[in-house]
Amino acid sequence: MLDANEFLEFLKSRRDVRRYDFLDKPIEGDKLQMILKAAISAPSVGYSQPWKFVIIEDENIKNEIYKNFEVENEKAKKIFAKSELYKNLKLEGIKESPLNIAVLYEESDEAVLGMTSMKNMGEYSVVCAVQNMWLMARTLGIALGWVSILDEEKLLESIKADKKDKLIAYLCLGYVERFKDEPELKTLNWRDEKSLDECVRYIR
Amino acid sequence: MLDANEFLEFLKSRRDVRRYDFLDKPIEGDKLQMILKAAISAPSVGYSQPWKFVIIEDENIKNEIYKNFEVENEKAKKIFAKSELYKNLKLEGIKESPLNIAVLYEESDEAVLGMTSMKNMGEYSVVCAVQNMWLMARTLGIALGWVSILDEEKLLESIKADKKDKLIAYLCLGYVERFKDEPELKTLNWRDEKSLDECVRYIR
Repeated sequence: MLDANEFLEFLKSRRDVRRYDFLDKPIEGDKLQMILKAAISAPSVGYSQPWKFVIIEDENIKNEIYKNFEVENEKAKKIFAKSELYKNLKLEGIKESPLNIAVLYEESDEAVLGMTSMKNMGEYSVVCAVQNMWLMARTLGIALGWVSILDEEKLLESIKADKKDKLIAYLCLGYVERFKDEPELKTLNWRDEKSLDECVRYIR
Repeated sequence: MLDANEFLEFLKSRRDVRRYDFLDKPIEGDKLQMILKAAISAPSVGYSQPWKFVIIEDENIKNEIYKNFEVENEKAKKIFAKSELYKNLKLEGIKESPLNIAVLYEESDEAVLGMTSMKNMGEYSVVCAVQNMWLMARTLGIALGWVSILDEEKLLESIKADKKDKLIAYLCLGYVERFKDEPELKTLNWRDEKSLDECVRYIR
């Protein structure tokens, strides 16, 4: 069994990688398999395993998705117009990373155990799979960035997804020179780190 | 750094625990702290850290939440009326587990970086925190069960949550005699395990 203290240090060493950090080095097939196996070892509501993974290496599709990002980020820049910092942030690594993975949630036609009251549980299962992928990638020295500044409809069209599919995460994966010690948005003082006290309450 | 193969075995050893498996043994304060520290080491969109953790040990509140479950599960039983198995499933451990944790998402009043296009990203950040908690608990030999058959509004009222809070997960934690080798719903043939081939597609 893993040592809890070591595991906490490991969890803290995971980074969201977006800046021009990706090396020009492909991800080996067996490592991709490990990342995908980690994904499907995640918990899922009613053992529904409602996940789908679309591995994207095609340059044309990546370019199309990059344009999708650009359009959405222009809108975001207007929302953050007061921030000089936002404009200069690098918020994706779609073209620089050798591998992109679109992680989808497939809605079920039938009732799913555990989803009768809370309808988002299927989506949440897929998020657990993403977190497993992120951690497995980290053990392999592979960096991952989660891109969320995308138009979902357009993205699903670009990858020819089924009508019942929903986009949960768009991931960019690749090797990096090194993992930074802290989240970039913390280092840049975009937001402060919250303490445990700020987010925990007891009912005893 | 963790060994990838060992880490995969570890991920596979995580279980959702609901049956009458919880031992009458409290969770030590320092172990709870480790689980909470794992939670806030999760990634969050725009470094927003939009999570809140309500630790519930009060028996009256637990009883109230158990009744919430009972009402919702009666509805679910009607949905799964054709299934003899559903009726007999134990789907929560609210009263048997020494510790319950309600994990909430706090909506921000301001625009959040990375949430301008995909509005669910904040909720997804909180799910990543839950998965970190689940894994940290496993390293400590502590079992966790995620209860989703609950009325969200009623639950939030029971724990006197703020108006802007949303329920992401209701967790039951405690020690167990042993962790089962496989997901119970797999063992009971509720659903088959999906292979990687069934959920992976390549665009090369």
